[in-house]
Amino acid sequence: MAATANPFSVSVSSKPTGGSAFPKLNDSADFFLRVQNPLKSVSLRSSFVSRGSIELSLSRGGGSVTSAKRGARSARIRASLSQVMDQSVTKTDPIAPTTVDVDLGDRSYPIYIGSGLLDQPHLLQRHVHGKRVLVVTNDTVAPLYLNKVVEALTKGNPNVSVESVILPDGEKYKQMDTLMKIFDKAIESRLDRRCTFIALGGGVIGDMCGFAAASFLRGVNFIQIPTTVMAQVDSSVGGKTGINHRLGKNLIGAFYQPQCVLIDTDTLNTLPDRELASGLAEVIKYGLIRDAEFFEWQEKNMQALMARDPSALTYAIKRSCENKAEVVSLDEKESGLRATLNLGHTFGHAIETGFGYGQWLHGEAVAAGTVMAVDMSYRLGWIDDSIVKRARDILQQAKLPTTPPNTMTVEMFKSVMAVDKKVADGLLRLILLKGPLGNCVFTGDYDRKALDETLRAFCKS
Amino acid sequence: MAATANPFSVSVSSKPTGGSAFPKLNDSADFFLRVQNPLKSVSLRSSFVSRGSIELSLSRGGGSVTSAKRGARSARIRASLSQVMDQSVTKTDPIAPTTVDVDLGDRSYPIYIGSGLLDQPHLLQRHVHGKRVLVVTNDTVAPLYLNKVVEALTKGNPNVSVESVILPDGEKYKQMDTLMKIFDKAIESRLDRRCTFIALGGGVIGDMCGFAAASFLRGVNFIQIPTTVMAQVDSSVGGKTGINHRLGKNLIGAFYQPQCVLIDTDTLNTLPDRELASGLAEVIKYGLIRDAEFFEWQEKNMQALMARDPSALTYAIKRSCENKAEVVSLDEKESGLRATLNLGHTFGHAIETGFGYGQWLHGEAVAAGTVMAVDMSYRLGWIDDSIVKRARDILQQAKLPTTPPNTMTVEMFKSVMAVDKKVADGLLRLILLKGPLGNCVFTGDYDRKALDETLRAFCKS
Repeated sequence: MAATANPFSVSVSSKPTGGSAFPKLNDSADFFLRVQNPLKSVSLRSSFVSRGSIELSLSRGGGSVTSAKRGARSARIRASLSQVMDQSVTKTDPIAPTTVDVDLGDRSYPIYIGSGLLDQPHLLQRHVHGKRVLVVTNDTVAPLYLNKVVEALTKGNPNVSVESVILPDGEKYKQMDTLMKIFDKAIESRLDRRCTFIALGGGVIGDMCGFAAASFLRGVNFIQIPTTVMAQVDSSVGGKTGINHRLGKNLIGAFYQPQCVLIDTDTLNTLPDRELASGLAEVIKYGLIRDAEFFEWQEKNMQALMARDPSALTYAIKRSCENKAEVVSLDEKESGLRATLNLGHTFGHAIETGFGYGQWLHGEAVAAGTVMAVDMSYRLGWIDDSIVKRARDILQQAKLPTTPPNTMTVEMFKSVMAVDKKVADGLLRLILLKGPLGNCVFTGDYDRKALDETLRAFCKS
Repeated sequence: MAATANPFSVSVSSKPTGGSAFPKLNDSADFFLRVQNPLKSVSLRSSFVSRGSIELSLSRGGGSVTSAKRGARSARIRASLSQVMDQSVTKTDPIAPTTVDVDLGDRSYPIYIGSGLLDQPHLLQRHVHGKRVLVVTNDTVAPLYLNKVVEALTKGNPNVSVESVILPDGEKYKQMDTLMKIFDKAIESRLDRRCTFIALGGGVIGDMCGFAAASFLRGVNFIQIPTTVMAQVDSSVGGKTGINHRLGKNLIGAFYQPQCVLIDTDTLNTLPDRELASGLAEVIKYGLIRDAEFFEWQEKNMQALMARDPSALTYAIKRSCENKAEVVSLDEKESGLRATLNLGHTFGHAIETGFGYGQWLHGEAVAAGTVMAVDMSYRLGWIDDSIVKRARDILQQAKLPTTPPNTMTVEMFKSVMAVDKKVADGLLRLILLKGPLGNCVFTGDYDRKALDETLRAFCKS
C-alpha cells in the first residue's frame, strides 16, 4: 500500500472509545477521538488550542513490545492533526506543525514536524532565550538555508542579533579542533549565558553544536534545526551530543537537551540521494527493535520514501520521532533501554572508525552493522530466518550496503569494538534481535563463538 | 582567641533544645545535642552510626544572612564529632573524618575532612564504581601522593586496576590540549562507562579532571582529592568544572558533581606558603559575603592559620565547606545566590587573564579583586569604611596582594570583564558588599561611575 496524503482516519466522540487513562490537560473544550492510520488505531483526548490546530494526548496501546520495554509507562505524545480536522483552513493560514513531545520533566521539549516551518518565525522565536543567537552550520547547508533561518529569527524581532559560524562539512571534522571554532566565535562575539546556540545541518553539526552549547559557559540554550533524514529521525532528538576521538566515535560529549527541534521537511528537497538512504537506515532500525507495524508499513512504502513522497516522509519522520521520544523519556542517560537504539551501531562504528570517518555515511555503516547484528542473532538461535531475510531485503530496497567494506578485518572490528561505550567492566554488550519481529535485547550474555562466526562470515581476513 | 584542638562544647538531652524541625533519619538510638562552638550554637539530632562516630543532622539557625539568601531553606549537614564524644577510642583506631554533606537530591555527596584520611582505604573505595580507576594529577603532586592514593585504592581490593596521567603543573596548562591528554589516556587504556576518574591536586587538576569525567563517554564517576587550601575550601566542592580559553577563564566546562570529596589535611604539609595564602583568600571571602562570625574568628586566628595550626586549618576548611555546601545546595547552577561566591572574582579573573595565567595565583588575583569590589561598594555608599579597612587588613595579614599588578590598565580590565560569565544581555553584574559585615548583593543595578572610579583608582592608566 502506498502512503497517502492523509494517513489518518478520524472519528469523534464525547468520551473515550478505549479504556486508556488519559493524562490531565489544561483544557476547556475536550472531546475524544479515535484516530486510525493504516496500521493501528489509537484513542486520543483532544482540546482546541487555536484555529486550525488541536492538541492531542494519547496513550499508546498495541504496537510491538520489545524485550527491553517491560515495565514501560505509557508515553505522552501531542500531535496536531489540523490538516485532518479542519477543512476550512484558508490558503494564507500557515499549516500548524505536527508536534511530538519529548517528556523529560523540566527538560521536556517539542519536536515540530512539517512543511514550511522555517516560514513560521514564531515557532523558533518562542524558544530563543536572550537577545543573542549563534547559528552553527556547515559550508553545504549555509548557502541553502542560513539566510532563511536568520530571517525566521529576526522577522518582527529587531532586538535579536544573530551570529553564525560555518564549519567544513563532513564526519571527519567532528573533532576537537572544529569544536574550538564554535567556542572561538562565541567568545569573540562576547556571547553571554543568556544566548542561544542553533544547530542548522545534519547529525555532525547537531552533535558538535549541542556539545558546544552544553560546555560554553557551562551550558547555554540550544535549538536543533536538522536538515537531513538522519538528523530528523534520530540524532537531533534525545540530547546526545559529542565529538569523535581518533580512536573511536562520540567518545567525548554530554547529554544535553535542546529547547526544541524544528524539522522543516522542505529542507529534504536538497538532500542527496545517498544521504536520504543513510537516514532510512535509522528508520528501519525503529521497526526492527520495537515497532513491527512500522516495519511492515516501511516494507510497503519504501518506494514512496525513496521517491521522496512528502507525506510518506512526514509519516516516517513522525513515527520515528515518537519511538525515539518514548525511549528517551524512559531512559535519558542510557542505563538500559536507550541502548537498544544502537542496533547495528557497534559494528557500524567499527566500520566508520576502521575505514576512516567520512568514507561511508553513518547510516551506511549502520546498515551493514544491522545485517551483522541480525546475522549474529540468528546464529544464536534467537530469531528465525524470515527476519534475517526481511531485514536484508528492506535495506537493499533502500539501496543501503548489507556487508562491510572489503578492507575491514576481524581484528579491525575487535580492536574498535573494545573501546565501544557499551563495554562495561571489560564485557562488550550488544543489541541483538530476539523473538518475533520488533523485539530486541541489550545484553552481554551471549555465546562469544557467535560473534566470532559473524565477524569471520563478513570479513575476508 | 587562638583555635583550640576542640572548638566544640557539647550538651546532651533526650529532646531538642531548640524549636527546629529535624529531618527524618533512619536511626534507632536518637538523642539531641546542643553543640556550641566559640561563635555560635546549634541544636542537632544525632544517631550512633558506629563505634567512635555519630551522625548529626542540624538545622542551622543564627549566623549572618546575606541579602541574596532570602527564602533559603535550612541546609542539612552531617558532622562526625567522634573526637569530642568518644573518649575511649584506642590509639590504633583510625580517627573518623568530619563530614559535610552537599545536599543535591540524588546527586548529594559527602566531603570528608581530617588528618590521615588517605590511610583509611574504605573512605575512597566505597565511592569507586567499577574496576578501573584513572588518577589525574600533576608533576608536582604525583611524587608526593600518587603512590599513597594508589595504595588506598588497591589495599585489600585486588580487582581494581589504577591508571594515572600526570599533567604539567600550572594554571597556564588548564586548556584544551592538556585536557585531551586525559581523554587520550582514558581511551588508550580502554576505560569504559563504569570507570572512576580521581582528581589528585589543586583547583586546576580538579577542574580539568572534572570536565574530562563529565565529557568522557558523556559522563563517568568522579572523585576529588584536593591537595591545596584553595581546592579544599572552594574549587573541589560544588561541581564547577572546566578549562580556560585564551580570551577568558573557565569559559568552557560543565556542572558535574563528584561522588565524594576527600580532604586529607596532611597534604597541606607540603604546600608552599604562597599557595596556602592563596587559599585563604577564599576563606576570607566566605566571611565577607555571608558569615560575619566566621570573619571575626579569622581576624582572631589568622596567625594560627598562617602558622598551619592543624586544628585552626581544619576548622577553617570545615566551616568554608559548610558555607559552600549550603550555597550550592540552594543554587547548583548559579541562577543567583551561588554567584555571590564570586566576590572579587570578576576583577580577579581580569587580572589573571590580562596579566597572563600563572603569573599570579588565583587567590592572589581574587584578593586584589576583593579589595576592588569592596572599594566600589564603599563608593556606592553601600558599606561603611570600617568594612573597607577590615577587609584590607585581614588580606594583608594573610600576606595577600591588595592592589592589582602595576601593568594592569583600565582598558585591560574592561576588555576582559566584558566576556565574564556574569554578563547577561550585555549587562555586567557584580558581587558587591551591602549593609553590615557578612552581607552582599549580586546585581547589575549600580552606578557605572563607581566602577569607573574604582578602576581608575587601582590602575595607573
